[in-house]
Amino acid sequence: MKRVTKSNVIYSYGIRHKPVECVKTGEPLTLMTEDAFGGQIRNVEDKVERLDWSKVDGATGPVYVDTAEPGDTLEVEILDVKTESKGVIVTIPKHGVLAEKSFKSSTQTVRLNSGLVHFEENVTLRARPMVGTIGVTPKEFEVPTGSLGKHGGNMDVKEITAGVKLYLPVFVEGALFAAGDLHAVQADGESCVSAVEVAGEITLKFQLIRNRQPEWPVLETEGSYAILACGDTLDEAAEHAAGSAVKALMREHSWPFEKAYMFSSLAVDLRINQVVDPKKGVRAVLSKDFVTLESLLAA
Amino acid sequence: MKRVTKSNVIYSYGIRHKPVECVKTGEPLTLMTEDAFGGQIRNVEDKVERLDWSKVDGATGPVYVDTAEPGDTLEVEILDVKTESKGVIVTIPKHGVLAEKSFKSSTQTVRLNSGLVHFEENVTLRARPMVGTIGVTPKEFEVPTGSLGKHGGNMDVKEITAGVKLYLPVFVEGALFAAGDLHAVQADGESCVSAVEVAGEITLKFQLIRNRQPEWPVLETEGSYAILACGDTLDEAAEHAAGSAVKALMREHSWPFEKAYMFSSLAVDLRINQVVDPKKGVRAVLSKDFVTLESLLAA
Repeated sequence: MKRVTKSNVIYSYGIRHKPVECVKTGEPLTLMTEDAFGGQIRNVEDKVERLDWSKVDGATGPVYVDTAEPGDTLEVEILDVKTESKGVIVTIPKHGVLAEKSFKSSTQTVRLNSGLVHFEENVTLRARPMVGTIGVTPKEFEVPTGSLGKHGGNMDVKEITAGVKLYLPVFVEGALFAAGDLHAVQADGESCVSAVEVAGEITLKFQLIRNRQPEWPVLETEGSYAILACGDTLDEAAEHAAGSAVKALMREHSWPFEKAYMFSSLAVDLRINQVVDPKKGVRAVLSKDFVTLESLLAA
Repeated sequence: MKRVTKSNVIYSYGIRHKPVECVKTGEPLTLMTEDAFGGQIRNVEDKVERLDWSKVDGATGPVYVDTAEPGDTLEVEILDVKTESKGVIVTIPKHGVLAEKSFKSSTQTVRLNSGLVHFEENVTLRARPMVGTIGVTPKEFEVPTGSLGKHGGNMDVKEITAGVKLYLPVFVEGALFAAGDLHAVQADGESCVSAVEVAGEITLKFQLIRNRQPEWPVLETEGSYAILACGDTLDEAAEHAAGSAVKALMREHSWPFEKAYMFSSLAVDLRINQVVDPKKGVRAVLSKDFVTLESLLAA
């Protein structure tokens, strides 16, 4: 199986970055990834004040997907997410959902084993390894891997785990895909700005859907689809997510706007992804009972 | 069992409203409730343009809870929520999460039976009857029953269903509790501004916890507690919910702020209640593994 080592890191999605690997559809690939701090924080003494911020929020790639063309949809199936056995969490003054409060920078390391995150002696959480940053390269502009948008990026959606599929719009030839920023566990919101940041590896494979694209990245889990939108505020992100869901319901059921809008009030859950990145993220979750992938990918 | 009929309706939580019933703790009580439109919309021809808005968003009550004193917490156990067999949904121009879009006012009625909501011939949803408005009377001011705040009110939390407990701060003698605005089903967000609005009845009983109060209403479900905060924007509501959760974690574990803030990033889900009422609502959901009711009620 092809493996891309974590030395192949980019800090922006941009066409100037040459592909480090090329894969065919259906061919499994492993990306080895550094943690969000580029491995600079190893111990509780390593405070964020000494961070080299140019080495933060990297993603491994870009990977060229054979025959991917602008206008296609890249289906990314996440086969496995493995983390190393030590993760790190930080607080950074003026960051996170409580940025207005006065608090100190601090660092905590946590052991990860047997599927558990050992936060404290008697406080453990179930690990739920997820991929924080995952996306493709836009055509017209370059975007930091720490940000997010219609190309994906640092979406920090806790449900991007092994077993799901993500649908991303292809903007450039080969898609130029990159991913990283694993979290051993994260809650909706990622309140303090970091989760359990950890190095590891992601195994995935690609398929292509021709000549159709989602408006925003779409996540497929066992029973539902989620539209992964963002905005400058949560309210704007919620508006984008709901608007895209209503359009999909209109296509699916041949409903007028008003009917789809009503139905969204009953059946589309608006959920917070994260409230702490350059853009806030909200997902609109629809049961597969009510929408098909076809309707989520505009012609 | 004591029953309060739906003619006993108030449109504000305020001390000028005389109690219509008095109950002791542990004594079951049924409130019969009108739908959010005060029963004015019965058919698809009944458009919102002809609504008498002074008859909208009422709550049944107020009920005096014997021996409730300011500084106490009112525990409200919801024993049953029953709805009538016909509900109504509307769109209202300039309302809802997609208020910026241009669309028409429209009305749809839906049949409710066998635990199902019949949206269309071939589109049914499972009914999940919930209480949209539930709260107590503030001391210093009067608040419309269509709004929400630390006293509860029109919170539109889809998890306020039969089987849960809600903890509300008591501000005035007797608490002066009122509830209404049942929804047969509602998704997180309540995107279009209405859910399946329906008349019905709520059966509940009260207990009192002395000399302690939650910062925001707290909802107890089987496995978790949720802090029900609000704000002028979703971002502000998220900040209030997360801030209150962090304080509870600090009390529970004797942690400094930074540690509780980190942990909230891993274990406190910030979820959208509704994004369409006068104030937006976000709940912070914590597993009972990590917090007790004691820590959610400040001394």
